[in-house]
Amino acid sequence: MTNSDLDAVAAAVRERIDPDEAERRALADAAAALESRVHDALADLPVDADALQVGSTARGTWLSGDRDIDLFVRFPADLDREELEAYGLEVGHAVLPDGHEEYAEHPYVKGDHDGFDVDLVPCYDVPSASDIRSAVDRTPFHNAYLTERLDDDLAADVRVFKRFLKGIDAYGSDLRTEGFSGYLAELLVVEHGGFEPLLLAAADWNPQVEFDPEDHGTRSFSDPLVVIDPTDPERNVAAVCSAENVARLQHYARDLLSDPRESLFFRPDPPALDPDGVRDHLARRGTSAVAVVFDCPDLVDDQLYPQLKKSLTGVADGLDRRGFDVFRRATFADGDGEAVLFVELSVDERPTVERHEGPPVHVRRHAEGFYDAYEGGDDHYGPFLDGDRYVVEREREFTSATDFLESDALFDVALGKHVESTLSEDGYDVLVGDDVAALADSFGAELGRYFVPRP
Amino acid sequence: MTNSDLDAVAAAVRERIDPDEAERRALADAAAALESRVHDALADLPVDADALQVGSTARGTWLSGDRDIDLFVRFPADLDREELEAYGLEVGHAVLPDGHEEYAEHPYVKGDHDGFDVDLVPCYDVPSASDIRSAVDRTPFHNAYLTERLDDDLAADVRVFKRFLKGIDAYGSDLRTEGFSGYLAELLVVEHGGFEPLLLAAADWNPQVEFDPEDHGTRSFSDPLVVIDPTDPERNVAAVCSAENVARLQHYARDLLSDPRESLFFRPDPPALDPDGVRDHLARRGTSAVAVVFDCPDLVDDQLYPQLKKSLTGVADGLDRRGFDVFRRATFADGDGEAVLFVELSVDERPTVERHEGPPVHVRRHAEGFYDAYEGGDDHYGPFLDGDRYVVEREREFTSATDFLESDALFDVALGKHVESTLSEDGYDVLVGDDVAALADSFGAELGRYFVPRP
Repeated sequence: MTNSDLDAVAAAVRERIDPDEAERRALADAAAALESRVHDALADLPVDADALQVGSTARGTWLSGDRDIDLFVRFPADLDREELEAYGLEVGHAVLPDGHEEYAEHPYVKGDHDGFDVDLVPCYDVPSASDIRSAVDRTPFHNAYLTERLDDDLAADVRVFKRFLKGIDAYGSDLRTEGFSGYLAELLVVEHGGFEPLLLAAADWNPQVEFDPEDHGTRSFSDPLVVIDPTDPERNVAAVCSAENVARLQHYARDLLSDPRESLFFRPDPPALDPDGVRDHLARRGTSAVAVVFDCPDLVDDQLYPQLKKSLTGVADGLDRRGFDVFRRATFADGDGEAVLFVELSVDERPTVERHEGPPVHVRRHAEGFYDAYEGGDDHYGPFLDGDRYVVEREREFTSATDFLESDALFDVALGKHVESTLSEDGYDVLVGDDVAALADSFGAELGRYFVPRP
Repeated sequence: MTNSDLDAVAAAVRERIDPDEAERRALADAAAALESRVHDALADLPVDADALQVGSTARGTWLSGDRDIDLFVRFPADLDREELEAYGLEVGHAVLPDGHEEYAEHPYVKGDHDGFDVDLVPCYDVPSASDIRSAVDRTPFHNAYLTERLDDDLAADVRVFKRFLKGIDAYGSDLRTEGFSGYLAELLVVEHGGFEPLLLAAADWNPQVEFDPEDHGTRSFSDPLVVIDPTDPERNVAAVCSAENVARLQHYARDLLSDPRESLFFRPDPPALDPDGVRDHLARRGTSAVAVVFDCPDLVDDQLYPQLKKSLTGVADGLDRRGFDVFRRATFADGDGEAVLFVELSVDERPTVERHEGPPVHVRRHAEGFYDAYEGGDDHYGPFLDGDRYVVEREREFTSATDFLESDALFDVALGKHVESTLSEDGYDVLVGDDVAALADSFGAELGRYFVPRP
């Protein structure tokens, strides 16, 4: 490897992701027109407020084709929350007559303008980030911090790094991905002074890794990557980033440094599988797959995926605890279709009997209670001694994974709230063995990623 | 329960185990005659020595029907070991003309006299137990200690306690049983002042339990029961007694105290099983049994059983480590026939693939080595990430318990020395599933105890 190889790759990537002059101009024009409309709308209001463009399109760090314009309307900090919300929506609807309301920290208006997706968000104009009244008030400070530090070269490196994170499936702080947010990506590039120095550092990280650009952090975190928000000493910008995504960045940083190539930035998904492909993999692996299939709860992804992950862990642990050894697992969802908890098992059947250990014989009261409970009766073996303990071999509650999944015991495991209500109210299907192959009709891409796993 | 119920049971037991007057006289006569012969033989030797009857038949603590007479010949402490052995054998053969030589600490002569089994053992006549030159020199001091403390009542309680230990399968300090020796039984009765106080105490023991009758112990032990030898402050008389046999005594002490009954002293074995019986149990249990069957090594029990137990542990651990979950296990041996390592499994098959965890990605040198070793190639899945580690799913070495048992890998587990040489030189059979039922032809009693377990 030489730097020039990596530089050449980065240049080639930039050819594909840098917005060209026409795109920049169109965006600047649209933003200017929107700001002007905001000023017009504000003129009708009995408060003093201003408009501020934020986000990657405000800082030149967006990738060609992104069509998001974020406009924040800053109201005086002493305004009532109800007034702020009312004024915010009034401005929003005036600026985006065809827009609709959404809800984050406050309600806000989202709409289209000249082909751009515009968010028009009201916030408080506070003197410093430590005075914020709502989470969105922090955004203007983020914007100011980065704008001050990003020159054209660093902005270009941010775009390359963001494309790299997309290529390795680590981009996004949504709760499905648990990866790197755009803001985090920008801070890391600024902190390291560019894309390549960031890669060189990440390749050698030994988590927990902590960065504190303003050297003002006041608390400790348990996350593998900690980047103290330059505008908030109490906040880890990388809190959502999972250990796996940190490891993923480390892996591919090494990979790219040792073999610079453009393809890693635009990596296609593994081919989708059809039912025959799933059957072939299961036969080759010799495992037994089971799947709990149900109507996908109607939730936004940031609510849906945590619930699916929690449910998957609950079901897998429930199977494991009953002796059905989990080999691997995954959850798939198709917004307005089905959701799946998919568990691949090493063991899907257990004997009729299970070992049940009692107390040590010398713990007299417990030991006598245990012995008396099991003495006599012909539905078990024992009690007998193993070392200093009583043991009985009694009938196992579930001798197959399917029995467990189809029983009420499924509801004893920790399930996501809406997953639990869906399963109990609308029911669910349990697919076993080769029948899971039919899932490929809806989730062929997901099954492709599952059966052709990569870092 | 009342004491009188237990007393009545003990009295009934004594009816069956106390030697009657004729038996006592016959034994006394035989012992006197043997001692006289020893004196005659000693008269021809150029050393000053004497004879001493030891053991339970010397102390009135034997059970009716026991036919063992132990005669120790005490030679001067300054005698050469070679001379001691030569003189000992000379006396032995003179006293027991039809006897044969055996070997413990020294060679000694064993033979029959008037229907009694006589051991004629040479030892050193040392001034105190702390001066012993060989382990057998301690026996006369044991004998003196107990003889001084056992009156007729306590001797009777020793007999009742020994019969109780036999009834509950906890009698004997051989390495197959790992139970209570006769000497230990006598010390415990003396220490507690009788059978019933011993039971009351044992029912409440909270191991580690330590007794030190002479209050002279100088070291600590890790055994569950510690009885410091009154003649040796460094020795735990109960060192061989397993935690299970201590628990067994506790269990049955409570049982007898709460429901005094003679039957516990003369408990029959569970009925032997025939092959159909074994098949029925396996079908009911839903487990898979495997057995390694080989020619029983020609060893005394105290060498054979530790080797069999070690081998059983090794094989069971080897199976467990490869995912064949062991449910229960046992070893059987028929001195001049076969020996068996019997393992009942919950899982006897595993998938083709196994999970193989690599290092955390951040441990760069190891992580890169692991990744490079597995990158590419189509005989495995991955490497991919699970949390911060690399994982591959590679082909499992053994997908069935039988494959493992029939492979050379069996010799990688810890096996008893002579078991290992027998398996490697003479070969072995692996029985699987219902084929193990055929073992009932040779080991029906053992399989009866295995499948009808009791404390």
